[in-house]
Amino acid sequence: MPKVMKSLNTIHRCQSLYRTEKLSADLCAGHHAFIFTICRLPGRSQEELARDLYLNKSTVARTCGQLEERGYVYREPNTCDKRQTLVYPTDKALAVLPKIREISVDWNKIISNGVSESEMEIFNSVLKRMEANAKAAISDMEGKL
Amino acid sequence: MPKVMKSLNTIHRCQSLYRTEKLSADLCAGHHAFIFTICRLPGRSQEELARDLYLNKSTVARTCGQLEERGYVYREPNTCDKRQTLVYPTDKALAVLPKIREISVDWNKIISNGVSESEMEIFNSVLKRMEANAKAAISDMEGKL
Repeated sequence: MPKVMKSLNTIHRCQSLYRTEKLSADLCAGHHAFIFTICRLPGRSQEELARDLYLNKSTVARTCGQLEERGYVYREPNTCDKRQTLVYPTDKALAVLPKIREISVDWNKIISNGVSESEMEIFNSVLKRMEANAKAAISDMEGKL
Repeated sequence: MPKVMKSLNTIHRCQSLYRTEKLSADLCAGHHAFIFTICRLPGRSQEELARDLYLNKSTVARTCGQLEERGYVYREPNTCDKRQTLVYPTDKALAVLPKIREISVDWNKIISNGVSESEMEIFNSVLKRMEANAKAAISDMEGKL
């Protein structure tokens, strides 16, 4: 079986470099996924973000803190459950979102160069199964994270 | 064209959670790739590691610092070029390497569940092309990073 993760992780890191370079904003690698998901569903708790992004809670809390310092999000305690911290996008995050989307579309085009439509169909079908397998493995560990 | 990066990034993050949970060591997400590459070719400079891993130099310097604090690597100035910092694995890194390899093999098996050999062949061929496209895009930006 080919070692798919090395290639997959390299593509992931190249995308981070590309996004950071093209965006020219004060966002670091890893911040972009947060902007996407916080703008899509504002007001979710940090715990929900951790589950949605498949990151541990401390990474989410640290990254939300960095984004708050840079003015991309603000955080408020949940009035129904004071233990929860809810995260909202600021106007700065909403303003940068279209550019992040545009860069993501460009990156998808770049990496798909030379891949036929039929190959892409099989690739995507396998990738979706791999994603489902990966998520199921993490769900099995739930509570341990 | 399907949005492949979302799935690909999710698989990457799930792998990080899985590795961190299974390894039970004081290594964080992102550290594992460093252990692999530093053990494979000890004594490379931080600049070479940044190029090899497709990370920016500040991320490499910060992560090597964390790994040094935890006793996984040691750093020495290059006697031929004092501006360069060379990175070597410690016995602690070499001791944990087989376990990281074992976990990576297990993870590859988990995500490949339900994927036929012929599908995997096409998937891997497309993935390799995507990786080459991604690396070429970053090389085009070289000097800017």
